Amino acid sequence: MSSSFLVVALALQAAPAPEQSPPAAETLISRAQQSRGAYALLTDLVDSVGPRLSGSEGAAAAVAWAVERFTALGLEVHKEPVLVPVWVRGLEQGEVLAAPGRRVHALALTALGGSPGTHRGGLEAEVVEVTSLSDLQERGPSVRGRIVFFNHSMAVAKDYRRFGELRSKGPEAAAKLGAVGALVRSLATASMRSPHTGMTQFTEGAVLIPAAAVSVEDAEMLHRLLGAGTVRVRFALGCRILPDALSFNVVADLRGREHPEEVVLLGAHLDSWDLAVGAQDDGAGVALVVETARLLAGLPERPRRTVRFVLFMNEENGLRGAKTYALAHARELGHHVAAMEFDAGAGRPLGVALLAGAGASSLLEAWLPPLVQLGAGTLLQEDAGGADLSPMAGAQVPLVSVVQDTMHYFDIHHSAADTLDKVEPEGFSQTSAAAAWLTYALAESTAVLPRPAPPAAATPSSAR
Amino acid sequence: MSSSFLVVALALQAAPAPEQSPPAAETLISRAQQSRGAYALLTDLVDSVGPRLSGSEGAAAAVAWAVERFTALGLEVHKEPVLVPVWVRGLEQGEVLAAPGRRVHALALTALGGSPGTHRGGLEAEVVEVTSLSDLQERGPSVRGRIVFFNHSMAVAKDYRRFGELRSKGPEAAAKLGAVGALVRSLATASMRSPHTGMTQFTEGAVLIPAAAVSVEDAEMLHRLLGAGTVRVRFALGCRILPDALSFNVVADLRGREHPEEVVLLGAHLDSWDLAVGAQDDGAGVALVVETARLLAGLPERPRRTVRFVLFMNEENGLRGAKTYALAHARELGHHVAAMEFDAGAGRPLGVALLAGAGASSLLEAWLPPLVQLGAGTLLQEDAGGADLSPMAGAQVPLVSVVQDTMHYFDIHHSAADTLDKVEPEGFSQTSAAAAWLTYALAESTAVLPRPAPPAAATPSSAR
Repeated sequence: MSSSFLVVALALQAAPAPEQSPPAAETLISRAQQSRGAYALLTDLVDSVGPRLSGSEGAAAAVAWAVERFTALGLEVHKEPVLVPVWVRGLEQGEVLAAPGRRVHALALTALGGSPGTHRGGLEAEVVEVTSLSDLQERGPSVRGRIVFFNHSMAVAKDYRRFGELRSKGPEAAAKLGAVGALVRSLATASMRSPHTGMTQFTEGAVLIPAAAVSVEDAEMLHRLLGAGTVRVRFALGCRILPDALSFNVVADLRGREHPEEVVLLGAHLDSWDLAVGAQDDGAGVALVVETARLLAGLPERPRRTVRFVLFMNEENGLRGAKTYALAHARELGHHVAAMEFDAGAGRPLGVALLAGAGASSLLEAWLPPLVQLGAGTLLQEDAGGADLSPMAGAQVPLVSVVQDTMHYFDIHHSAADTLDKVEPEGFSQTSAAAAWLTYALAESTAVLPRPAPPAAATPSSAR
Repeated sequence: MSSSFLVVALALQAAPAPEQSPPAAETLISRAQQSRGAYALLTDLVDSVGPRLSGSEGAAAAVAWAVERFTALGLEVHKEPVLVPVWVRGLEQGEVLAAPGRRVHALALTALGGSPGTHRGGLEAEVVEVTSLSDLQERGPSVRGRIVFFNHSMAVAKDYRRFGELRSKGPEAAAKLGAVGALVRSLATASMRSPHTGMTQFTEGAVLIPAAAVSVEDAEMLHRLLGAGTVRVRFALGCRILPDALSFNVVADLRGREHPEEVVLLGAHLDSWDLAVGAQDDGAGVALVVETARLLAGLPERPRRTVRFVLFMNEENGLRGAKTYALAHARELGHHVAAMEFDAGAGRPLGVALLAGAGASSLLEAWLPPLVQLGAGTLLQEDAGGADLSPMAGAQVPLVSVVQDTMHYFDIHHSAADTLDKVEPEGFSQTSAAAAWLTYALAESTAVLPRPAPPAAATPSSAR
């Protein structure tokens, strides 16, 4: 990805002289790297809490973990109630059938979040392959009674956006045409027969059909088999949709010394998918947020503004925490002077991205020199924001992001392989240093970032 | 691996002038590469037959597949009965328990071949980590009532030999000390939470305990958790050991034009593990053998000696096919002038290895120049042979091997990821070309290779 970054060319003009206190920069950056505190927090989170799917025991344990960590740092902590969907995985089996009854191939598959289960004996039908939503539409009623197989050619991280709708919208679209099930090729950049889950959306009142992700290898095989003839598949999913349950966002304030009413929000999401411990999605973000709190709380003097650390619940399968926060704090959002989310793994920092009003770039750039030593001192033309910040779009909160290396993020994203061992501690500590310094800069700067244009033009988004 | 190869330094001495017919070399090598016939055969085998564990429906289908292929080539084909062990995988579940009843982590695990199942509710005990069989012995009776966790640091393909005994011998050794279960870190050079199975040996009359492989990631986690305190694990295996069943080796002869009683044996194994289609273990070997048959049968003239293509049954969990062949053909083995097995994946060829008597090297080297274009024209000091050839050791059959690149072989070996997509067709076609030419050379050469020293000095082995 990095080769395609465009460095923002800024005329050497009236950039204000850096106003940061160099000791704070040195302190934050060196402590983040030397302590590797984010990595230690991440290790503790994933090993002691485990997977954290919304509504699960693990998610509740994560809330308690976060409250405890922030409290120990002396922050003002509270939990904000969020009603979350509860979706529970069950048995998962799939097979390609040759002659009736003769199973030739097991399919490595996993239910997509939001999918209903199949009948106990599973679902059996002929398979139809499509490669896009428009391709599906062209098949029209010919998919009736069939299992629609969504195939694609994801190869690099950026393809996640290109093919993501096959998973999020494909099954519902297939159901509308009368399909009885959906299999989606995993959105992955590497595979060891490991299916990658994720949310599929069924709008209220829609017909729900069982939907699962198949591994890249199984998608390749289905494609080959379909090239040779008819393919019948049977798959069984034991997943269930249960009633909504009470959960929480965890909100912790480090109150500002001069403008406590002005808020710089630093966010990540506490929940994860259930196949693994979510070390990178989004344990890494959680650790970056808590470690930033620790580093800022350890400075001799608090920043000018309030820094609010928000660990959102239910980013993965509902965004309920983010929506609830935006609603509950609607009147405060005008005083949110900046927001930054970490939800792109544990990769090293590559630069900074910004979504704000005219003149914001040069204002922010004045604070970037300390990030040069981390390889992240450049403003990049990448999207800023994050899924949990999207419900705030209406309030035109300036969005800032530390752009991270996501080259290998989609190797493991939403799969059973999203485990601690894939995190490279050195690069992660550099991102932690960048997070801490940038948060400090936004909270300490005398000037605030101009707010972005109204939401029609603002399209924050990120890999969920 | 390749950096450690030692090129055999041979004095430029009385090497006999090449006696091969250049047209045959050109024909075989160019046809193998242009047709990519081995890749096509491999695709057909894995897609139409699937997994082929001994005693399974898939293994029977593989026998029929092989008979049909050889018959179509006009070879003299027959099946030789082999009584194989039947081991069937079932439910597999594992978890790390924190407070009693609270599951924190699911374990990605898979039963080792030969393991008994657990009771229905699974097996629960404290975990003890050991890193070698001698480490285990030092723990002595302290492992009584515990689950022994065999950890190691496999990083490259060559480590398979170093740590392989933890899987093959560890569980029985732990059982002797009173352990109630065994978890073995997967023998793998890459992982996406993918456990790698394989045979564990229980000698007759030994106490059997349930034994499973855990993924590399889970091994890393267990190691971290054990560093922090006591770890309790529960795991359940539904595998079963059933009565032996009748299966077959498939043997096909291309009768020699001058010395039909002299046999050059080319082998691979038809069976595979059950987690995947065994594209590389040993579908690749099977395809190389059948494609060599096709290429040699397509020459205008048959080679001087008989080439015997043997597809062994039950290499993975018993070696019964190999033992049965050696026994049934005991009187013929003195006329087996060379044997070559393919059981190291689908990697490109790196050279040739040899286990034979004095003077064999220079004899063989005279036939290697056509392999230079394939990057395989050098005699390497690597082991020659293969597991299926080991029961012939007493007959001192000269062993020849095409040494292949196995850099990524143990990424997928014995795991669910041993699928067709990992095979690189170009490199595989080069190995097919080398196989065909080398087989031809051994069958056509007027001189035969001198036989190796008696078995005490001969230690053929290979990655199983």
